[in-house]
Parts: sequence; structure tokens; C-alpha cells
Amino acid sequence: MTARALPHFVEGFGGVRPFTGLEPPPAVVTRAPTRVCAAVHGRDKLLRDIDAAFDACHIRDGATLSFHHHLRNGDEVLNQVLAVAARRGLRGLRIAASSLFPVHAPLVEHMRSGVVDRLCTAYVSGPVAEALSRGELATPVVMQTHGGRARAIESGELHIDVAFVAAPAADGQGNLSGAEGPAACGPLGYAMVDVQHADRVVALTDHLCPHPLCPIDISQEKVDFIIKVDSIGDPKGILSGSTRPTTDPVGLQIASTAALAISASGLLREGFSFQTGAGGVSIAASMYVKSLMLERRVQGGFGAGGVTGYLVDMLEAGLFRTVFDVQCFDLRAVESYRNDRRHQAMSASLYANPHNRGPLVDQLDAMLLGAAEVDLDFNVNVTTGTGGVILGGSGGHADTAAGAKLAMVTTRLAASAGPKIVERVGCVTTPGETIDVVVTEAGVAVHPRRGDLRERLVAGGLEVVSIGQLLDRAQALAGPIASRPAASTETRIVGVVEYRDGRVIDIIRQIRT
Amino acid sequence: MTARALPHFVEGFGGVRPFTGLEPPPAVVTRAPTRVCAAVHGRDKLLRDIDAAFDACHIRDGATLSFHHHLRNGDEVLNQVLAVAARRGLRGLRIAASSLFPVHAPLVEHMRSGVVDRLCTAYVSGPVAEALSRGELATPVVMQTHGGRARAIESGELHIDVAFVAAPAADGQGNLSGAEGPAACGPLGYAMVDVQHADRVVALTDHLCPHPLCPIDISQEKVDFIIKVDSIGDPKGILSGSTRPTTDPVGLQIASTAALAISASGLLREGFSFQTGAGGVSIAASMYVKSLMLERRVQGGFGAGGVTGYLVDMLEAGLFRTVFDVQCFDLRAVESYRNDRRHQAMSASLYANPHNRGPLVDQLDAMLLGAAEVDLDFNVNVTTGTGGVILGGSGGHADTAAGAKLAMVTTRLAASAGPKIVERVGCVTTPGETIDVVVTEAGVAVHPRRGDLRERLVAGGLEVVSIGQLLDRAQALAGPIASRPAASTETRIVGVVEYRDGRVIDIIRQIRT
Repeated sequence: MTARALPHFVEGFGGVRPFTGLEPPPAVVTRAPTRVCAAVHGRDKLLRDIDAAFDACHIRDGATLSFHHHLRNGDEVLNQVLAVAARRGLRGLRIAASSLFPVHAPLVEHMRSGVVDRLCTAYVSGPVAEALSRGELATPVVMQTHGGRARAIESGELHIDVAFVAAPAADGQGNLSGAEGPAACGPLGYAMVDVQHADRVVALTDHLCPHPLCPIDISQEKVDFIIKVDSIGDPKGILSGSTRPTTDPVGLQIASTAALAISASGLLREGFSFQTGAGGVSIAASMYVKSLMLERRVQGGFGAGGVTGYLVDMLEAGLFRTVFDVQCFDLRAVESYRNDRRHQAMSASLYANPHNRGPLVDQLDAMLLGAAEVDLDFNVNVTTGTGGVILGGSGGHADTAAGAKLAMVTTRLAASAGPKIVERVGCVTTPGETIDVVVTEAGVAVHPRRGDLRERLVAGGLEVVSIGQLLDRAQALAGPIASRPAASTETRIVGVVEYRDGRVIDIIRQIRT
Repeated sequence: MTARALPHFVEGFGGVRPFTGLEPPPAVVTRAPTRVCAAVHGRDKLLRDIDAAFDACHIRDGATLSFHHHLRNGDEVLNQVLAVAARRGLRGLRIAASSLFPVHAPLVEHMRSGVVDRLCTAYVSGPVAEALSRGELATPVVMQTHGGRARAIESGELHIDVAFVAAPAADGQGNLSGAEGPAACGPLGYAMVDVQHADRVVALTDHLCPHPLCPIDISQEKVDFIIKVDSIGDPKGILSGSTRPTTDPVGLQIASTAALAISASGLLREGFSFQTGAGGVSIAASMYVKSLMLERRVQGGFGAGGVTGYLVDMLEAGLFRTVFDVQCFDLRAVESYRNDRRHQAMSASLYANPHNRGPLVDQLDAMLLGAAEVDLDFNVNVTTGTGGVILGGSGGHADTAAGAKLAMVTTRLAASAGPKIVERVGCVTTPGETIDVVVTEAGVAVHPRRGDLRERLVAGGLEVVSIGQLLDRAQALAGPIASRPAASTETRIVGVVEYRDGRVIDIIRQIRT
């Protein structure tokens, strides 16, 4: 990629260590010391309500509170906790949420009122994203990757004062599980990192069980307090976003091409490993991959994710020996996690942290990625949309792209809003040097550093074109768009995009309203 | 207990913080920072041999190497690694082994030659124990508890340079399992703590599997290197010590009394939780407890341990909802761990660390403990035997005694070597204030602080006597023994016994040879 011109310092964020290309990790990484309040034998961990947790944990102005997003757009815990914070008159909280969804709209008011003045997350959509884009948070939002968040927590760069865990099932000693209860959501992979490093850990549950729970996702020696609430959320909200295969002919064509490209790459062999996002094209592609595996009797190694029922189907068809799951994307995946030992939980650190002894993304063969935009350097934007408004974020996008042998973006040439292949993405989420292939309805473009792969795809009969050709076709299809005005350096910076190793890969400026 | 007179300083150990009675844990515990060498994407973790691991980990004179004892008297890993250390001419290593068995006899020569000059462990028997007692290690052995070891590792008090893991199954990325392979030994509960905090982690395996393993006990982000060896050990050695019920009438009488005492205590109700050591009387007692539970249709909560097939029987009979297992004591337990999800792994920290947010021992109702000696203060010695020679150590003895509502010692009045109820134990492993009841063939003695329990046992028809009465009967049975010579302060100190919180509860002096 052509490195972005970044400021040396961002007000409300600090000094900027710019991303200037991939680097090996530092030889030695130091993980911060952690503080633990040892249990006093016989003292009850059950608290009356959330207020009692604020008292017990001595939550003060400026504290960092963490949340995880396994209940996705059904989560009620973040809203409940912040309502209490606001009522108590707290100010200047930092919220470290693994992701934020439309359901978290009440956070906007807390940003406005100053209850919350710092925010870091790997993904944000809905009213909070829009408010961030309008500059309603006092400081720039820090956009991390899922692996980068784990890294930052472990290193102490992101110190959590109190981790709040939405626990679909819990016992009175703090053993927690995502497999059972009315809001069962599957493994608690993001929370696993938080509870390991936070000063205090508070679990909220609406399904309090006799001690001890079995099986357990997070065990009692990591949990300070438990609160029984009426509801932690609506599991129907887990299924947010597109988690069904596309039925649109163009989408299906792209999906089919992606599957053929995986096949032509030579990776679809014994031990094949695979991950997709939850988009409709990705899921359709995974169904084509499934057919190819069945046809050729390929026994894969593992599927990973964010897990959908479609990946579970592949596990159950014997196409993978195991599935690694950091969070479930639908209820069929939750059910599989509950019943099938081959369906294993993984922490966000095991999944994607670049500063441990080997994240699982490094063993991925093929990764299917979505994109809001892709540019001539193969940079991908999944963070901002039309007009530069925030609409998502990396999640595991940049992590899996860096890890997988074949990081493949599937995208249409254009959407209603304009071309999706552009000269220069509005925001770099994932650097082009970690992307191998872009698959569109008008052919596939291979990153220039992957001449080997280009040859294989050509030999496999795929229509390989240059990224420039895709740009031309996209512009022809969508009509020329007015070239973006150069980002004014006078517009306020409302977001800082961190690459997974913590270097700043881009910034996000306030939108014109 | 009457606190022991302890020196302020022990040569080769340092300043002594004496145990002076139970104390609540410190309000805040700090866990040490840890160092991790981040994986470089694509670099192979498989090493040629143990020598290569010494090179890769830069193991130098004075390093601390840790080992775990899940293969018990069948373990070959410690011997293999130290043979390499000796061949390489290393000096002054510290060995942090969770336990040591007769199979580890070659360690004696490494102590003599100076390859090893410091040792800490929770249990040691056989030639190494004897050599320690004779003063063949340059410094005093540090005897920990299983929970105390986890605490010391987490706090940084015991910093591990390289953790060696005997992995019954492993894949090439370092996912490890104790459930599969020719030396399957069950969950790797002690190693789980080591790998979390060591600078470097090396797994040895004789069963290298395709990536990824499933299920996994220790996952790849915690493991630096893997070495394929011919054998990590003989699983038959797991079954060491007495792990069958006693058939001796006196032993059976004690076991039956213990079960009746549990019943009379009122604890044998819905949610009952239970642990025993692996001694013949304990196992017989657990069989009586099982009968009582079946008879009264008591649905227990959990069994824990060191797990034997007898505890598995109780799980399978539906008497517990789950079993928590830090290590298996026999192959039936290993098989259950492999096949039954209700049989859960637990780390040594979850098991017994007094400085986390709540170890499982704190939820134990009844714990059956063995004893080499018990004294008038109810102090228990399982560390030294006749003449003061080292013959074991706490393991989880002091941890479970501190945690359980009913900590019950079962012992005969006397053994061939003399009375087992004594005025003053030769070495305090477990302080009397954490023991509730001593059960013998001549009645049960209740600790004076448990007047409530005494009443229940009397009401339950048990023969409750004073500990003094038991002493008298023991002496009558065994004949009076020559009173121990006062420990000479001129005899060298060869061992320091740490209570689970790290305070020194006793010292061990060199034996007369």
C-alpha cells in the first residue's frame, strides 16, 4: 500500500505510530501485570443489582469498562450498565466494547452528556456509528481489530478496570456458560480475554443455576461478582446482518467464482481450513466449497469464525474435524456448540492476537472477506461508507487477511451508492499487501506479489484481470463519481483506525452534516 | 496450632515469613508481568530434539525449568530433559516440578553434580526424597501445596523460564491434549498454570497428530515449540500408590465411620460436593458415601480431585452433576475424561490457588484426607516419616483442608512404625485449625473450634472422643515411643515447607544417616 499521510499526534488519542507496511512482531512482548482481588472464603459473590457492583468495584469517573458482543443486536447488558452509570452521575468513562450494534443507541446520549468520553471497539454500526461520525464523542473512537483488541488488553495498553460479562448461564460462584439459558449465544470468546486481565469481573445473568455449572466457558476463579437480572438480551438479535446465502444471480456468480478460485489455488486438499464472514455472498460461496469438498472427498482440518449454521453443516457432513468458534452468528451454531464436542470455543487471543505464540488465523487456508470498497492497492475498507460515515469496522477482517494463505475479497463491482472498486479507499481497514485476490462478477484480480497464485488461477480457467480493469468496469457500471474532495486537514478527527499490532493505519474525519 | 519456632533466615532460601495462623488473603494481589515471544507467521514450531529446545529457548546456567506430574511414576520427560541439561554441562538449574516420584531417581545424580541446585515441588517420594533428606541438594527443597504453587507462579514469586509439558497428544502448532495417545493421562491441570506464565513453553509428545487437535487441553497460542520423542512415559505408572479400596477390616471400619460422620454432619444433601485422596481408606469411604447417596437419593453437585475410577462411578451413577479433574489417578478416570463432557478439566489455580477470585476447594463440603501423623493440635504431617525422612508432601492436602466445610482425616491409631496420633507432629503440612475431624478405629475426635459439629456427630451416634484420648490409645497400641530428641538447631535445614499463601509453616532438617 501507499502509506497514508497521518498526523503525528491526534488530540484525545495521543502520538501516532503509523502503519508503514507489514512487520514481524517484536521479539519479546511483555504482558502487563494484573491485579486480582482474592476471594474471601465464604463471602457471597451474588450482588443485589448493578448499583451494588458499581459500589463493590469502586467504579469512578474515568474508569474503563469492557463489554463483549456475543448477543450482538440483542444485547441489553451494556445499556443496563451505562444507565446505572449515568444515574450515578459518573463522567468520562471509557467503553471498551468488542463491537457495538444499533441496539446500543442509548450510548449516544451518554456520549453527549459526558458520561462516556472515550470508546474503543472493533466494529460499530447504527446510531452510535453515526453519532461518532458526527463528532458527538469528546475524543476519537479507537477502531481496533478483534485480534488487536486482545493484544492491547494483554499488553496493558488497554487496561480494563471492570469487565462486564453477559452470561447466558451462571452459577453463584461465577462459572459462566454461553451454551445454556434463554439467551444462549455460544462461546464467550471475546469476554475470555477481558476476564483474564481486568481488575474486576462482573457477570450479569438471567439464568442463575446451581453450582457448579457444566460445561463452563469462563470459570469461577476469574469472576468477582454475579448479578441476576431479568434479561441480558434477546437471542433473536444474534442473527443480525446478513447470515443467509445470497439468492441474487450476480451474488451467486461471485460466490461460485470464489469457490473455483479456492479450488484452483491448490489449497482444497486434505486438512483444508476455512473461514468466511457472515455476508450472503460468503455463505453462498461456502456452500459451493462444501459441494466441491464432498465431490472430491476432501477431509478438511477446521472451519473457524464467527460461526454460522452453514459452517456447522460442513462440520456435521464430516468436512472438518473441528470448528473453532469465537462467537456464534446464528442459533443453529449455538445449538451445535451446546451439543457437539467438535465445536470448540476459542478466545479472541487464540483466534487472532498477533502477539501470542500463534493465533489460529495463521493456519487458515482460505478466508472469504467482504468489502465496502477495494482500491488499486488492494486496500479494503469495511469501516466507512458513503460520505465517510462509519458503518462497521474490521472485526476479524484485518486479522484473518493477514493470517490466511488465501485472503479473498468477494464484492460486486458497484452498489447503488457507487462503484466498490475505487482508486483509493475512503478508509483503510485492511492493508492491500494482506489481500491475495479480489473476486467480482467481472473476473478476479490477483495481488501483484502473488504471481504464483495468478498462474494457478489462470490455469484453473478463471478470468484473471487486473485491479485497474476492475476499476474501469466498476466506473463504467456505476457511472463516474465525483472525485472525493481531498480530506480537509481542518475537519476534526473522529476516529483512529489501529492495525492489529496497534500501529495507526488510518484516521476518520468528521462527516459534513 | 502452636506456631513452630522458625529461623528468621534459611541459607539458600532467604528470609522466612512465618505462618502464625490463618489469615484472610491480601485485599489486592498483583500478578507478575509475563514475557511472550510472539510467533512469526509460518515459522515451524517443531524442533528436532530436546537439544534444539535448549538452543531455541537459550537455557542457561541457573534457569528455572518446570515440569508437571500427570504421568506420575510413569513420567519420562523430566529425566529426558535433565539428561540433556547435564550433557550440555549446565549448572545450577532450579527445577519446579508439581510432584516427583521414584521414577525420577536420576535427578539425584543431577543434584550431586550441581546440574540442579534448587528444587520446589508439592510432593516428592522415592530416591529423590531420600537424597533431599540426606542433604544432597545444595539448597533446601521448597515444599509447596498444589494451590500454593499456582499462586507462586502467578504472582511471579516462582518465575519459570521454560515450562516443559509432557503432552500425550499434540499437533504441530502446539495444541495439546491429555485425553488421547499411548500415554493418555487425562487433563493437564498443573501444566495449565505453567504455560500461562512461563517465558517459554516446550511440549514433548509421542503422539503427533494433524492440526488441529480436538478437543484441546492447552491451546497453541500458549506453546512455543513441540518435540516428537519416542515416548513421554508409561501410562501404567499413573496408577502409583494405593488407588484401590482397602480390604482390611480396620481400614473398612474407619472408612465406614468417616461416611457416617459425613452423614451426621448434615452435609450429605442436595448439591453435596466431595473429594478424597487416593488412599485405600479414602476410596473405601467414598464407596460407603456412594451407598448412602443412592439410598437417600441425594443428587450431589460435584466430585473433585485427583480423580479415580471410583469417583467416576459416582458420576456415572448420577450422584454428581459434574467432576472437576486436575489430574487422573487411574486409567478409568482417563477414559471418562475422554468420553464424558461432565468430566471437566480444571487448572491448579481453579482447583486450589488461595489468591484468585475463588478456588473450587472453597466449595467442597467434605474432604477425606490421609495422614502420616496427627497431633494434639490437629496438625497433620504428610511430608515426613519415621526419623524425619521426607516421604511426600502436601499436594492438595493443605488446600482442600482449608477450603472444605468438613476436612476429615482418616487414620489408624498406629502403624508398624509407631503411633500415628502423636503429641507433636514431626513436620506440619496442614495446620490443625483447618482440620475438623480425625477418624480412627477408636472413635472420632472433633477440633475444639467445631462445637457445632461435635454435637451433630454425637447426635448421629458416633463415638466422639478427645484427641488426647486417641493419643493415649495410640500409644497403648504401639507402645510408648522414645520421645523425639529436640530438633537440633545445628542440623542443616534441607527443606522449607510453605503454607499455600507462601508463609513458612515448618522446616525439615537433615536426617541422621
